[in-house]
Amino acid sequence: MIRSTTIAAAVFCAAFIPAHAGKSVESAPNGINIPQGYKDWRAIAPSHRTDNNTLRLILGNDVAIKAAREGKTNPWPDGTILAKLVWKDRQDENWAAATVPGAFVHAEFMIKDGTKYQTTGGWGFARWLGAEQKPYGKDADFVQECFGCHTPVKTRDYVFTTPVILP
Amino acid sequence: MIRSTTIAAAVFCAAFIPAHAGKSVESAPNGINIPQGYKDWRAIAPSHRTDNNTLRLILGNDVAIKAAREGKTNPWPDGTILAKLVWKDRQDENWAAATVPGAFVHAEFMIKDGTKYQTTGGWGFARWLGAEQKPYGKDADFVQECFGCHTPVKTRDYVFTTPVILP
Repeated sequence: MIRSTTIAAAVFCAAFIPAHAGKSVESAPNGINIPQGYKDWRAIAPSHRTDNNTLRLILGNDVAIKAAREGKTNPWPDGTILAKLVWKDRQDENWAAATVPGAFVHAEFMIKDGTKYQTTGGWGFARWLGAEQKPYGKDADFVQECFGCHTPVKTRDYVFTTPVILP
Repeated sequence: MIRSTTIAAAVFCAAFIPAHAGKSVESAPNGINIPQGYKDWRAIAPSHRTDNNTLRLILGNDVAIKAAREGKTNPWPDGTILAKLVWKDRQDENWAAATVPGAFVHAEFMIKDGTKYQTTGGWGFARWLGAEQKPYGKDADFVQECFGCHTPVKTRDYVFTTPVILP
């Protein structure tokens, strides 16, 4: 019984190991490591930016999804991680009025820790560029660019995205 | 040992029970039931349609995600379920050039079973409208509308969406 339970648990867990597990991705200049398994996270919302022609998908870790579904996102709780996946947009080849993802641009993250990231609104920021996942920023000061862009939505706890409502 | 394993498994599973579990949703006119837990599925791709002003997010069950990540989607394997979540689009209130999800429109599904759904390309179709999740279609013939719209992409196994590539 113990044996079969253990085997079943191992098989179950194996299905949740992300494909990139074990692949080495360099830390961001502020010391943040790329969150493991982010591409298996659940959706917070899609969006489309026509100023830089990108389609985006914001995902959240379990803490974020729980907060989003309970409507408790101002502030988002400590432990929240939001992932923003960004692709260049392109016209779909079979539906002219549809814009769909093209080349992958980057993955961005906001990590909520009110103590650790007190000087940037309680959020740690990091970005990894392209398929090669190159860390963004020459030094740790790159976060001022992130924080500056998010400051206009300070009253929304620095987050632009409104989580989708689903039945 | 058995007891602690069982308790741990129960706690783990509880975290994955979707919020709508137990809520009664009427079957589609062709007998298809709404797939349980679909809003916890992983992402296949976002898209934006400017002919009907909707933002969309296509999710897949575990079979679909495995196929998508392995590039084995023509044909998609039996057991695949694709969920398309659709919202009216709207301009973001804090970023004028961003289009974000507005009101929820409907959830649509394609269920792959080459035997069961042989007459419609191996796919079962169903749609539930709005927050109230009302089944779409007066009778089982509604699937001809779905199938007709997807027939132009027969050479892509009737699926418009190209799964995103992620590092």
